[in-house]
Amino acid sequence: MIYKSSLALFTDLYQLTMAYGYWKTNMLNKRAVFHLNFRKMPFNGSYAIMAGVQTAVEFIQNFRFDLSDVEYLSTLKTSDNEPLFEDKFLEYLLNFKFSGNLHAVEEGNLVFPYVPMLRVEAPILQAQLLESPILNVINYQTLIATKAARVCHAAQDDTVVEFGMRRAQGIDGAISASRAAYIGGCHSTSHVLAGKLFDIPVKGTHAHSWVMAFEEEITAFSEYANVMPQNCVLLIDTYDTVEGVKKAIQVAKNIKRKNFNLLAVRLDSGDLNFLSIEIRKILDSHGFEKTKIMASNELDEYLIRDLKQQGTKVTIWGVGTKLITGNDQPALDGVYKLSAITDDKGKWKYKLKLSEQTAKSTNPGILQARRFYKDNKYLFDVIYDENFKISQNFEAVHVRDFSKVRKKTEGVEHKDLLVPIIQDGKIVYKFPNLKEIRERSINEVKMLFPSMQRFLNPEPYFVGLEKKLHDFKINLMNKMRKL
Amino acid sequence: MIYKSSLALFTDLYQLTMAYGYWKTNMLNKRAVFHLNFRKMPFNGSYAIMAGVQTAVEFIQNFRFDLSDVEYLSTLKTSDNEPLFEDKFLEYLLNFKFSGNLHAVEEGNLVFPYVPMLRVEAPILQAQLLESPILNVINYQTLIATKAARVCHAAQDDTVVEFGMRRAQGIDGAISASRAAYIGGCHSTSHVLAGKLFDIPVKGTHAHSWVMAFEEEITAFSEYANVMPQNCVLLIDTYDTVEGVKKAIQVAKNIKRKNFNLLAVRLDSGDLNFLSIEIRKILDSHGFEKTKIMASNELDEYLIRDLKQQGTKVTIWGVGTKLITGNDQPALDGVYKLSAITDDKGKWKYKLKLSEQTAKSTNPGILQARRFYKDNKYLFDVIYDENFKISQNFEAVHVRDFSKVRKKTEGVEHKDLLVPIIQDGKIVYKFPNLKEIRERSINEVKMLFPSMQRFLNPEPYFVGLEKKLHDFKINLMNKMRKL
Repeated sequence: MIYKSSLALFTDLYQLTMAYGYWKTNMLNKRAVFHLNFRKMPFNGSYAIMAGVQTAVEFIQNFRFDLSDVEYLSTLKTSDNEPLFEDKFLEYLLNFKFSGNLHAVEEGNLVFPYVPMLRVEAPILQAQLLESPILNVINYQTLIATKAARVCHAAQDDTVVEFGMRRAQGIDGAISASRAAYIGGCHSTSHVLAGKLFDIPVKGTHAHSWVMAFEEEITAFSEYANVMPQNCVLLIDTYDTVEGVKKAIQVAKNIKRKNFNLLAVRLDSGDLNFLSIEIRKILDSHGFEKTKIMASNELDEYLIRDLKQQGTKVTIWGVGTKLITGNDQPALDGVYKLSAITDDKGKWKYKLKLSEQTAKSTNPGILQARRFYKDNKYLFDVIYDENFKISQNFEAVHVRDFSKVRKKTEGVEHKDLLVPIIQDGKIVYKFPNLKEIRERSINEVKMLFPSMQRFLNPEPYFVGLEKKLHDFKINLMNKMRKL
Repeated sequence: MIYKSSLALFTDLYQLTMAYGYWKTNMLNKRAVFHLNFRKMPFNGSYAIMAGVQTAVEFIQNFRFDLSDVEYLSTLKTSDNEPLFEDKFLEYLLNFKFSGNLHAVEEGNLVFPYVPMLRVEAPILQAQLLESPILNVINYQTLIATKAARVCHAAQDDTVVEFGMRRAQGIDGAISASRAAYIGGCHSTSHVLAGKLFDIPVKGTHAHSWVMAFEEEITAFSEYANVMPQNCVLLIDTYDTVEGVKKAIQVAKNIKRKNFNLLAVRLDSGDLNFLSIEIRKILDSHGFEKTKIMASNELDEYLIRDLKQQGTKVTIWGVGTKLITGNDQPALDGVYKLSAITDDKGKWKYKLKLSEQTAKSTNPGILQARRFYKDNKYLFDVIYDENFKISQNFEAVHVRDFSKVRKKTEGVEHKDLLVPIIQDGKIVYKFPNLKEIRERSINEVKMLFPSMQRFLNPEPYFVGLEKKLHDFKINLMNKMRKL
């Protein structure tokens, strides 16, 4: 973590007023289960890429209130100008430490609407306090990993460099997005701190200002070539792109240094189809067949796909603003909902939040998700309860359309998605490095049927509730509505 | 700053390769001028609210490379696996400190496309290195302050609480957005760390999980009322909104504590127009005329405006995701462009970047912006050069449409927008507190003609180049195109 000691107040005030309530009513140690899931597919696609688990765990491990935090909380007042919190509660917070359990879907895996991505089982006060920061971290990184996977899918075998930090939403917006974009399949980032923190390859060349700082464009190019002989990428559109590439070639031909290599020329404006084809011709006709063409400028998965269909000669894509912010959908709608709490005898009571639409009500229980697959293709996920279990001959009822049911068929294999990460406050999981997570995410997308990989109107992936759990839920809802 | 010592690598790699280039070619101390401006109006409105200056200045003041930074940089390799940077350059970075000048538009002021929001004048290596982090900070905070101003404009005299941290883009995404949202006019935030760091009022009640943690909704309400007698806001839609408000009233009537006050009830789902009218009737009929109705759920300026036109009884708005991310436009397109550099004799040479569209070329010079106003309404801005000056009888040529010209008329007053913030590396500006900035921004929006305050198709504000500067720019462009 790049932050100073305490981020304990990185939360919504209602988490603290509720914590105060649980403390005052002596409910603080009742064990509770919360799950995190999203409901709406990001970017109208069919899948999302799980990301942010390690960041969230680091947050939980560092979650401590320091003196300045409780001093600040002691200044908060009620509407009658009395202290909002008792001193004894603030003392309690000073000793706060997470002692619960965390399960999560491993980073780089595919996740779908309603599938539990994360499960916290802990004393209710603790589990509640973590809601806001965990949502912040998982929502954003999952969103950006998903966007990156889409961009890389459009770019096919080309190289994608994440370029977004200057347009990211704040400092951590950039840092965690560079991490997530790499998980989603980007090859490298321009963002140096992300390179340092996460060992992501970093790439960069020069800006228009470098060219403008010299009297002549050709001088700027030759000086840059001398400074970076083995990593020379020249930005050719400061004044005129076609003239620019000719000067780049002149410089490359004249340079006397050994090992000089004009790796690429870069475009940042104009028609990236027309210009790249012209520039490819000029480069090739001067013997620079190996020099690549890199492009940036408001790129996203749709524009890259269109340019490739038109035969663009760009093979390195610098993708910034529209990747780093999610652009068409800048937030994942992840929620974190209570699904079970112990009663006075320590027995689990299952809970759900009703909604006017039956299908929008939350799922009760202590949930696990099982993914079924065959011939390297994912078939469907079944959400089941750890106590009800799932049998060999289960039925799975679709989470929203109860008329759709799936069963296990011949030769189908499965895996459970939620794995233990923290047990009794201690990490019990070996975090893979980011490169491994990235490879996993790239392979995961290939496990989807092509019909689910489309950008437009993809076939949705089937997610069902195990029948016993489904029936329990419907019964509970009916009982509650009669109350 | 909540970050540990060094954020020096919070930048794009090309800033460091260019810095290396300026160092290698012995150009590092040539003085240069860069300006930051945006080009496209956020949210298709007519204005933006300047924000992020203090954050950017704190970044600049803390800008130091530490040992771990240069150690990391020493591991970067060229394509031939040789070190990307010489050791001597890394030693130079260890002693790096910003020694230049910064001018900026004060936070809370209105800004418009092409108006210089920030001017850095410094040795080129220094000014260049700051590009990426300054853009990150100013782009995002200005975007969110602007969105907040729009939301508050829609809410008229109602209270707006910023609720977005769980859907924000990362940790700093949330922190700096809470700051910016308050600047833009929000009354408070749910985000406690932002309250601690910036002295923003914090607000919060309880979640659905509080209600679900008890056997009966009414028990949850009475326990909460006992814990928070003077700050009681009850969330009434966990099971059934109309039943919920009846239980809230029952609790409020039965409670024995003195000073108890049911400040508000909160809705988080359903039709916020219909339900708020029903709930208002129920509250009023039981003598709770002073209890307010608070609402959240996918709110933005458009939905709030529509609900108010329909006669909703909501008067406290909790605005989250769509405010904190910018939603329909998640990034401001701010750029930071070189406009002047000294020659070998220390004389300024003015620079611009050509574009295929004349109007999109950058502005040369050492720029200042003058704002003209009359009868408490802003009329137009003129960008002028500090050396060419601006005369009493100036003409201003519109930045994009050269056929439009403005002159000074009778009784018009003016002020210059860029003020000195850092001089020779030292802060020379007294930062106002956030409350003052917020008041400024609220007043500033009132200085716009109503035609410019519309959400849909507002009248654009006139921004022109002072005629001498305009003519100089056109000449320079023509000269460059002939090159």
